[in-house]
Amino acid sequence: MSKPLEMTERTRIRRKANRGTYDRDVVHDILDDAYVCHVGFVANGTPVVIPTAYVRDGDELYLHGSNSNHMLRALADGGDASVAVTLIDGLVLARTAFHHSVNYRSVVMFGRGRRVDALDEKQRVLTLLLERMVVGRSRACRLPNEHELLSTLVIGFPIVEASAKIRSGPPLPEEGDDAQLPYWAGVIPLLTTRGAPVEAS
Amino acid sequence: MSKPLEMTERTRIRRKANRGTYDRDVVHDILDDAYVCHVGFVANGTPVVIPTAYVRDGDELYLHGSNSNHMLRALADGGDASVAVTLIDGLVLARTAFHHSVNYRSVVMFGRGRRVDALDEKQRVLTLLLERMVVGRSRACRLPNEHELLSTLVIGFPIVEASAKIRSGPPLPEEGDDAQLPYWAGVIPLLTTRGAPVEAS
Repeated sequence: MSKPLEMTERTRIRRKANRGTYDRDVVHDILDDAYVCHVGFVANGTPVVIPTAYVRDGDELYLHGSNSNHMLRALADGGDASVAVTLIDGLVLARTAFHHSVNYRSVVMFGRGRRVDALDEKQRVLTLLLERMVVGRSRACRLPNEHELLSTLVIGFPIVEASAKIRSGPPLPEEGDDAQLPYWAGVIPLLTTRGAPVEAS
Repeated sequence: MSKPLEMTERTRIRRKANRGTYDRDVVHDILDDAYVCHVGFVANGTPVVIPTAYVRDGDELYLHGSNSNHMLRALADGGDASVAVTLIDGLVLARTAFHHSVNYRSVVMFGRGRRVDALDEKQRVLTLLLERMVVGRSRACRLPNEHELLSTLVIGFPIVEASAKIRSGPPLPEEGDDAQLPYWAGVIPLLTTRGAPVEAS
């Protein structure tokens, strides 16, 4: 079992603490199950949220894009950031409107990115991204050449000040008269699957 | 055809402008296709990103939660925020690593929330949220009573300073020798579907 993440004031679970965890393996599993994160940073004094692809490796989340990418540059410049990843697993229907909910798994992180400059580390990160799409893909395409590596900005973001929050299972039981309401209650699962590949002409 | 959204410095599409649009109907369609948004705000001087459910009505996005919800309170207090919604439609595999991509539809918004206090407006918003889960659901459960409405914080967020970005279709064509590489290229669709409902015992 790996060492749990340390709670900080920023990652303290404020609401529904029973749904929260600092378990490193749980955090990593959620991160390994999604493709896109949302990065929050401050530009010209106002918050900005931008979605972007990522891959996890160990205790680091890697983002990448063009050298001129506004969000990546803000991170490369050492700006404070928050990164969230969310998976929606189901719609929770209860007998009362008040107990309707969503089943989800989410991770929220805080920290500062570091710019990855070493070409071999960049290559490794981009290889991991390919493997995350399809296992073996990094051996089934032409890998980046030096020019392409130099034109790609890669940012490592620490998975250190992080927490996960999970809601799963049926709606909360209703109390009193509400328990006798004649309405259906349960969960409608939301499933993400891969469809048949569409070959480019 | 509805009036397009006005571009501002914050919503100016900086990268891959051909993927961006200020078309109000396109923005609304993306918002109507997802369940969860990511809200970015500033707390104690640092950015925070939090996922939350929402529903759109007209030119407003509605968030809700407990009166003690940290993120909603930051919005109720008039803090600047950015809200993003992202749908992932497919993994784009090219003959070169460099041209791999993701098909997506996203909306990024900027603005300030307004606290919804009128109980009838709160009721309307919560009804819309139920209908977004399952059509007819607001007539198939007990609607919130006054106590529940008073313990729910509802925030309206303007869909005004907003833009959409969409990538769809096959990978970019490769150039020169890369076009002859003997690798598969195309799209693996990612599909979100509803599974069979699971009744609560």
